[in-house]
Amino acid sequence: MALLTDFGTQGIYVGVLKGVLSTLAPRANLIDISHDVPRGDVQAAAFMLWQASPYLPPNTIYLCVVDPGVGSARRGVAAKWDTQICVGPDNGFFSYLVSRDGTPEVIELWDPQVSSTFHGRDIFAPAAAQLASGTALNDLGPPVELEILLPVPRLESVSSEVVEGEVVHQDPFGNLITSIGILHPEGSQIRLAPWLGQEPESFLAAQDLAAGLPGGDELPLVRTFDDVAEGEGLAYIGSSGLLEIGVNRGSAAQTLDLKLGAQVQLLIKG
Amino acid sequence: MALLTDFGTQGIYVGVLKGVLSTLAPRANLIDISHDVPRGDVQAAAFMLWQASPYLPPNTIYLCVVDPGVGSARRGVAAKWDTQICVGPDNGFFSYLVSRDGTPEVIELWDPQVSSTFHGRDIFAPAAAQLASGTALNDLGPPVELEILLPVPRLESVSSEVVEGEVVHQDPFGNLITSIGILHPEGSQIRLAPWLGQEPESFLAAQDLAAGLPGGDELPLVRTFDDVAEGEGLAYIGSSGLLEIGVNRGSAAQTLDLKLGAQVQLLIKG
Amino acid sequence: MALLTDFGTQGIYVGVLKGVLSTLAPRANLIDISHDVPRGDVQAAAFMLWQASPYLPPNTIYLCVVDPGVGSARRGVAAKWDTQICVGPDNGFFSYLVSRDGTPEVIELWDPQVSSTFHGRDIFAPAAAQLASGTALNDLGPPVELEILLPVPRLESVSSEVVEGEVVHQDPFGNLITSIGILHPEGSQIRLAPWLGQEPESFLAAQDLAAGLPGGDELPLVRTFDDVAEGEGLAYIGSSGLLEIGVNRGSAAQTLDLKLGAQVQLLIKG
Repeated sequence: MALLTDFGTQGIYVGVLKGVLSTLAPRANLIDISHDVPRGDVQAAAFMLWQASPYLPPNTIYLCVVDPGVGSARRGVAAKWDTQICVGPDNGFFSYLVSRDGTPEVIELWDPQVSSTFHGRDIFAPAAAQLASGTALNDLGPPVELEILLPVPRLESVSSEVVEGEVVHQDPFGNLITSIGILHPEGSQIRLAPWLGQEPESFLAAQDLAAGLPGGDELPLVRTFDDVAEGEGLAYIGSSGLLEIGVNRGSAAQTLDLKLGAQVQLLIKG
Repeated sequence: MALLTDFGTQGIYVGVLKGVLSTLAPRANLIDISHDVPRGDVQAAAFMLWQASPYLPPNTIYLCVVDPGVGSARRGVAAKWDTQICVGPDNGFFSYLVSRDGTPEVIELWDPQVSSTFHGRDIFAPAAAQLASGTALNDLGPPVELEILLPVPRLESVSSEVVEGEVVHQDPFGNLITSIGILHPEGSQIRLAPWLGQEPESFLAAQDLAAGLPGGDELPLVRTFDDVAEGEGLAYIGSSGLLEIGVNRGSAAQTLDLKLGAQVQLLIKG
Repeated sequence: MALLTDFGTQGIYVGVLKGVLSTLAPRANLIDISHDVPRGDVQAAAFMLWQASPYLPPNTIYLCVVDPGVGSARRGVAAKWDTQICVGPDNGFFSYLVSRDGTPEVIELWDPQVSSTFHGRDIFAPAAAQLASGTALNDLGPPVELEILLPVPRLESVSSEVVEGEVVHQDPFGNLITSIGILHPEGSQIRLAPWLGQEPESFLAAQDLAAGLPGGDELPLVRTFDDVAEGEGLAYIGSSGLLEIGVNRGSAAQTLDLKLGAQVQLLIKG
């Protein structure tokens, strides 16, 4: 099982989740993806889940609690794909998995009405533990469809020289991850396999590439941070295969004037 | 086994505790409650232990290290109840468990005199690991009684309209937890079952309740944060059943002028 | 297995490492030493590894990722001693273990060329998991020698009254750890067994000791923090046996003007 929350580790909340999981599913192996999702930021949570999930063991059950609407009308759900099950609020958290992995089988979790403020402990963790112990999805509630899906971030090959996308995430080091990818270098070409199926696969020339920023500035696409001087900006293919904007031994988020949603271009000049 | 300390996670200290536990009790399942108890704050630690322990597996062994007097005369102890064992300093850490669960069987841990500054590693973790491996409590030291118990926070039904208590904890989000509870909504009534046995159970009318603050301000008792506007204060029954004071998408500790120990009233106006 | 990185816990990076380890070595027990090594600080990482490793179970495999040169020419290695295996970059990380435990058997890890920015996930974690699953060291790459070793911190008995060393580490509480030790109190004497073999063992008189600071100030060597008044400086034998400089309920790093590398003396005045 894997946990992804915005609870932080200062309080007892993560420990309580793990206590409930360990009580109900004593043999489960618990992996923390992070408990420091920016508080209430469902889009960041959805991105982090997309990013981490390929590296977790197959059939992992994800306990997902970033839930700014806890206690309101939003539903609790469990969503099952061939390769993973996610348990959490129906607030968009699973959007990018749906785009990548297809429509899951979803049930709405029975609400035992025990707590208005800590559904992670009272609803989601018990459901995740039951699934880990072999309970069938359909025994946890009636089938439904996900109600809330986040918009798919823009990725568009506007010409053979320009691919347009946007900043979709800021990592803890201040690197800015864009929606342009997945980029697979293959010899003299780069294969662009859109990460959320935005358009068909295509091939780009692999040399003399740059990232175009909103103000017209360009950053060279290089292999790694040390390919530019300290304090200089760079573009690179990040560890998830997406185009990223960074600053060598610095923070792109602080140095460059780029926010979430800012338009970024991949320029093929070769 | 569960760990609750003020070591933080920046240094190696938590890893060393877990190394000692894993060396001596390789099969033990380790759950972190928190390592971010405010440094040296035994009262906060006692509260967090009270709060988390109902959700950990039965028979959990708690390794408890918040120990501002390490190296001084305070004793190391292990305290055993039917449902849990706690290992740590005799400095008040276990006070609220004593109030809730009754007097434990206590032994004073032999002090091997190996270290003056890291009893967690040299005394408490080895003792906890031995207990996890089946060593009997009495084999770890001579029977004693706990010397230091924190005062029981005030909770008093002063009339059928007013219950008085105090702020006992600030959670990492800035919510202020009071000593008024445990409050169990039961239809048109709320059952007040004092969390540390301060007085007998009683019943309150469940409608038109408010929290009275020291300056005379009142906050409505609502179900959840979104029941008030963003930035507004509210009172609610927290996930432990205690009356809490919060601010929707904000921090009560920052917004309201309320400190630990401040008097709070539950006003029954219905 | 144990993990020591500078990834922090805000992002998904530690979770991804654990996902890879759990996928390839499902039975491995994972212990976090810390993920908050100051970013890119190989010397601090080497010190923390030296400090923690005696308390981890024998035959632990250490996944060590503090790697400011990731993607550059530095090699990835696995280094094997009788008691432990370390996997990580050949950048000095294992220096203090070499000084303490002798020359290890080292291989250079095959580089599958899959990622330029996340060798922890793509090279080091898979190698560590394979070793945990029984793969022989020599199956992971060709034998080499470690290329980069940090200088051994100074420790010199300049007279029977003065031992000279330097500040080698600042812990998260602001305590300053020096290179003077390991100090073993033995009755009326202290045995000095140099932690990195800087010189032969010797014996010091155990009474009337002090730490001499660069400006000429002296701090008494006492047993524990509470032996001096709040806010006062002290010297003490830390939990690793090294002479440390602290301030009771304060931060030596903030209060005293001492940086890494500053000369400190142990003065034997008895």
